[in-house]
Amino acid sequence: MARIAVVAGDGIGPEVVAQARKVLDAVLPGVQATEYDLGAARWHRTGEVLPDSVLTELAGHDAILLGAVGDPTVPPGVLERGLLLKLRFAFDQYVNLRPSRLWPGVAGPLGNVKPGEVDLVVVREGTEGLYAGAGGSLHRDTPAEVATEESLNTRHGVERVIRDAFARAGRRERRKVTLVHKTNVLTHAGSLWSRTFDVVAAEHPDIATEYQHVDAAAMFLVTQPQRYDVVVTDNLFGDILTDIAAAVTGGIGLAASGCINPEGTYPSMFEPVHGSAPDIAGQGIADPVAAVLSAALLLEQLGHAEAAARVNASVAVELASRTPGVTLRTEEVGDRLAAHAVA
Amino acid sequence: MARIAVVAGDGIGPEVVAQARKVLDAVLPGVQATEYDLGAARWHRTGEVLPDSVLTELAGHDAILLGAVGDPTVPPGVLERGLLLKLRFAFDQYVNLRPSRLWPGVAGPLGNVKPGEVDLVVVREGTEGLYAGAGGSLHRDTPAEVATEESLNTRHGVERVIRDAFARAGRRERRKVTLVHKTNVLTHAGSLWSRTFDVVAAEHPDIATEYQHVDAAAMFLVTQPQRYDVVVTDNLFGDILTDIAAAVTGGIGLAASGCINPEGTYPSMFEPVHGSAPDIAGQGIADPVAAVLSAALLLEQLGHAEAAARVNASVAVELASRTPGVTLRTEEVGDRLAAHAVA
Ligand SMILES: CC(C)[C@H](C(=O)O)[C@@H](O)C(=O)O
Ligand SMILES: CC(C)[C@H](C(=O)O)[C@@H](O)C(=O)O
Repeated sequence: MARIAVVAGDGIGPEVVAQARKVLDAVLPGVQATEYDLGAARWHRTGEVLPDSVLTELAGHDAILLGAVGDPTVPPGVLERGLLLKLRFAFDQYVNLRPSRLWPGVAGPLGNVKPGEVDLVVVREGTEGLYAGAGGSLHRDTPAEVATEESLNTRHGVERVIRDAFARAGRRERRKVTLVHKTNVLTHAGSLWSRTFDVVAAEHPDIATEYQHVDAAAMFLVTQPQRYDVVVTDNLFGDILTDIAAAVTGGIGLAASGCINPEGTYPSMFEPVHGSAPDIAGQGIADPVAAVLSAALLLEQLGHAEAAARVNASVAVELASRTPGVTLRTEEVGDRLAAHAVA
Repeated sequence: MARIAVVAGDGIGPEVVAQARKVLDAVLPGVQATEYDLGAARWHRTGEVLPDSVLTELAGHDAILLGAVGDPTVPPGVLERGLLLKLRFAFDQYVNLRPSRLWPGVAGPLGNVKPGEVDLVVVREGTEGLYAGAGGSLHRDTPAEVATEESLNTRHGVERVIRDAFARAGRRERRKVTLVHKTNVLTHAGSLWSRTFDVVAAEHPDIATEYQHVDAAAMFLVTQPQRYDVVVTDNLFGDILTDIAAAVTGGIGLAASGCINPEGTYPSMFEPVHGSAPDIAGQGIADPVAAVLSAALLLEQLGHAEAAARVNASVAVELASRTPGVTLRTEEVGDRLAAHAVA
């Protein structure tokens, strides 16, 4: 039976994770879940971000379900670098998977795009680029201060994520992969990405390909999101593009993600794209759909495709039945989703 | 009398620049314009991108009006790094100014945003960051290949562009500056940007401030573009965000930009945000509005505020009178804009 580590985290994290677990329990009775107390609260209480012993324990699970970590009271970077990115890097979660669909019933912000028309997945590289943490500064707080950030890219890291994107495209209907980078300015990394992309593309003559600069892709995600199927891109570009994709498909309240180690050497981690939203925490009004969809990605990754499909179908029913403007109650949504998933 | 260097460039560049000059001549008779042949065509013919002698000549002008450079037949980076970025860096054009307005008459893609509601300007840093050209690669085309790109940021460069943003906000109605960065991941550069922002903000207690991560800003530009007044950000984030801002305000066919050296030590350069669009080049159907609005920014920079206002008013009339779906003729639009500007 699947052994899941649960990091509910801060803010609305515990509220939405509770619903995701409710739905998981409904579709896959007997999941063993162990809770780990990590995030802003623990840091404030103990000064600890992610003790080595906890990292080792987490490694023993089949997957991690994460709510949200972070709080304005914690200095920027402490939990991001020390916890979230630490897990992505330590567990070699190089496929950061972010699907975006415009679900029927959801009123997106784009006047010209109809529900059902957008169904894309961004395969964001998760272990390299500007997220490597290579940077520094000199002469801090003087007029001579200089600060650097370095993007590190390897053939190893680029090729494996591109291969994953092509494999995914091969299992989808439209069979198209768009590479997004900024080859005209970031010529060294851009060249590595595009040469590697061309090599892998040549092995997949049945899959259509295109290349776009990141600025153009950011624009087309707004004017023509229908054109995308699978998008593969680097860590930072993926961070930005997936928030645009979320925005045009109804907001980050619905956006799920999986930080995946495809080989299964380490556990993969599943988390809503949204943050801890301290402004609405504790009120029971956070939308748990992103967390529930993340749980569906978890199920898929662990080989429970049928259970995942039931969760997705349940979300479809939920979203189609919503009345715009009516405030939802987190728990009630969770109850409905769990009920539909086993109906 | 103003001495302008004109780089019409490739693709639709010459077509739209001709209209911008028509309008300039109408509102400011006697402008002296010298044409420079630079871009893909010259590179193919002579192998030259930007000879030193031309750079020196350009430096002797009051401003540069640029159409578009680039063509798919030129390897990525050659014209971008060798010409466009070379000019921005050599002429220390550290304020890359990109206004976005949803003009009355223009149907943007957002269902909930009405014309007149969006009026923002992105002050994009133009001489630092990942555009510095600091990067390299090793073991090219082997499994061991590694490629780097380095973002270089100085207190000098960050402070001057932030000061410019606050000065601009002080001349606007809403008086608000939003800093966009990614301080939670790019901790070194992010810290430099946010500490410097706080110092400058403290000197401007009359100006409202906020901070957003770049992924959140990319999202809010889609869901709530009305919230922005002046946005200040680094070179790469500015590249991406301004294309989103263009997308939500009717597309890059309307987006103008100025690469400004505020001190006037070097000429500033004005260019539409769109590229050379080889697919529609030579057909006389490119929209010259972005080039004409760029000419208005040029007029403003050279102290001809009244002439600039007339060009903007002329664009307002043109856009309000357009019928959606009717293909426009570049020359006719130019004629109308010139006529309205002096009516
Ligand atoms: C919180 C932050 C470190 C993270 C990222 O930048 O990857 C978040 O924005 C995300 O997209 O998961
Ligand atoms: C062509 C390219 C080098 C340029 C940039 O990245 O700055 C363009 O995208 C722009 O926004 O002016």
